Amino acid sequence: MYGAGDVRVQDRPDPKIRQPTDAIVRVVLSCVCGSDLWPFKSMPATDTGRPMGHEFLGVIEETGSGVTRLKAGDLVVTPFAYCDNTCDFCRRGLQSSCRHGGRYGLDGVDGGQGEAVRVPHADGTLVKLPVGEDSPLLPSLLTLSDVLGTGHHGAVTAGVEPGDSVLVIGDGAVGLSAVIAAKRLGAEQIILMGRHTDRTDLGRDFGATDVVAERGEEGVARARELTGGDGADRVIEAVGTRQTLDTAFGAVIDGGTISRLGVPQFTDGPMGFEMIMRNITLTGGASPTRAYIEELMPDVLNGTIDPGRVFDRTVGLDQVPDAYRAMADRRALKVLIRP
Amino acid sequence: MYGAGDVRVQDRPDPKIRQPTDAIVRVVLSCVCGSDLWPFKSMPATDTGRPMGHEFLGVIEETGSGVTRLKAGDLVVTPFAYCDNTCDFCRRGLQSSCRHGGRYGLDGVDGGQGEAVRVPHADGTLVKLPVGEDSPLLPSLLTLSDVLGTGHHGAVTAGVEPGDSVLVIGDGAVGLSAVIAAKRLGAEQIILMGRHTDRTDLGRDFGATDVVAERGEEGVARARELTGGDGADRVIEAVGTRQTLDTAFGAVIDGGTISRLGVPQFTDGPMGFEMIMRNITLTGGASPTRAYIEELMPDVLNGTIDPGRVFDRTVGLDQVPDAYRAMADRRALKVLIRP
Repeated sequence: MYGAGDVRVQDRPDPKIRQPTDAIVRVVLSCVCGSDLWPFKSMPATDTGRPMGHEFLGVIEETGSGVTRLKAGDLVVTPFAYCDNTCDFCRRGLQSSCRHGGRYGLDGVDGGQGEAVRVPHADGTLVKLPVGEDSPLLPSLLTLSDVLGTGHHGAVTAGVEPGDSVLVIGDGAVGLSAVIAAKRLGAEQIILMGRHTDRTDLGRDFGATDVVAERGEEGVARARELTGGDGADRVIEAVGTRQTLDTAFGAVIDGGTISRLGVPQFTDGPMGFEMIMRNITLTGGASPTRAYIEELMPDVLNGTIDPGRVFDRTVGLDQVPDAYRAMADRRALKVLIRP
Repeated sequence: MYGAGDVRVQDRPDPKIRQPTDAIVRVVLSCVCGSDLWPFKSMPATDTGRPMGHEFLGVIEETGSGVTRLKAGDLVVTPFAYCDNTCDFCRRGLQSSCRHGGRYGLDGVDGGQGEAVRVPHADGTLVKLPVGEDSPLLPSLLTLSDVLGTGHHGAVTAGVEPGDSVLVIGDGAVGLSAVIAAKRLGAEQIILMGRHTDRTDLGRDFGATDVVAERGEEGVARARELTGGDGADRVIEAVGTRQTLDTAFGAVIDGGTISRLGVPQFTDGPMGFEMIMRNITLTGGASPTRAYIEELMPDVLNGTIDPGRVFDRTVGLDQVPDAYRAMADRRALKVLIRP
């Protein structure tokens, strides 16, 4: 990406092992993330550009001398950020703050929207998939890379428990994944707030019991009406604007929890008297997705959940710029890339 | 209180039973709260004035026909807000949001800084004390009314667990009570941030392992140094200014929790990118102090904790205006009132 709206498909040097802990992965399946759309809308123009993509699965082509858990030929999935999975933060399940972690597309690391990637800290980062390259489960397994783990992080940090009412704000792939996660954790009522009928219909398939198309104050009123007047026990905010944050505060019950998953497009939010008097907890954040892969994978493999349904289009590398445009224009929910 | 700086001692009508669930309590011991200082500094002048005080213990003089758990002659303590203790919010431990609750000094209810108070929902609100009017434990038992329960709420919502490092920001009575509460829940390291040596010395007696006198960025640096560079697992913010909130964010570890107890003197706070990337949880609020009285009282009665030491001055009703001034000028930590 060279700037807002400027995505180019170009040849880059083949990745090579640089550190003993590296692995080279040939990308089998990748995709475009909702968070890729923020720079697509606002990134200042640059001469050098920046490799994009942080969700992929693929086959290991080569491993550094320090890699012991994986070998060439393994089909693996990556969480959207790499990590050593051994430091104190990783051990407590906060791989997003790994002491040796980092992000794809930065610091000389390739992006996942390409043919091959050098993965740092491969032993810690990559998880072997027990299926073949031709498995029809690959799209669902790819969601372990980001959206499913992110939705799960929202449900976990929101404290979803059996019987809870949960409001999910946002009908993008993360919001829809949060519906899956909330249902998986036993939520009794799952209200999905979104106005794209095709997406909210998918949300109903995933477990949403109610859909609210209204936004702002009307959305708050409708969500409160659906929860007996008091608001939802848990709110998962999967958009990231100040308006959706205000909606979350308006629609959460006193003593309830708001978990945020959307990258916030603002700096300050309402932290004053009302939040204190109502004992509202604000939590969530960048998902330590590596922490959740082993827990979620069995449900994907046995078909209990089918998160790959968030992909509604597939492109080759040449069409990646079109994929960005389609997602930015809301013509596509989430686009799969087969290099 | 008739306005900022304008506290008057005046005769008011004797309270009478109005509802069957009321009780009339003769006040034995009351006090001035740190939160009383906010209106003392900023309340617009009024002609009618407002009864003050929300922390007291006393003897029941009369009960309404619907009061069944208490009787005349009982020595009782009140949480700082009254509640029915039976509604759905109360049952889940959020008495601060009771559907029939309210605050002393408002809506025709007396303040606790006086001779007698009509207490609504007496059965739900008041808790009988198993000691006599002359017990030396009364000051410590009075802290069950607010500061001890509030400090405990901070430690509970911050999620303090055995072995944790806890930073308490603020050396007022609530901050010091939070030190007691954090120690009681097993915190291994308790850093108290405050610059009044007499108060921080008391904090050390209560269980603080370290004291940080610096504020702002220097305070953050010192707190991080004391926690191995990463910040405290839990931060209890017991002041309520934007500066102390920023300090809390600066001094909490990634994935950690900030619990706020101070009434915020601002509307917006930092809810942007950093909070998300670092997975910081913001929680706390008005303590449902009624929920904690039975849990905390045994430790007061058996002397395990001695929270009454936060009182460093005692006055009669005539000197209450002086008490406000002394606390506002930081000449007194917390003033006891014996009507």
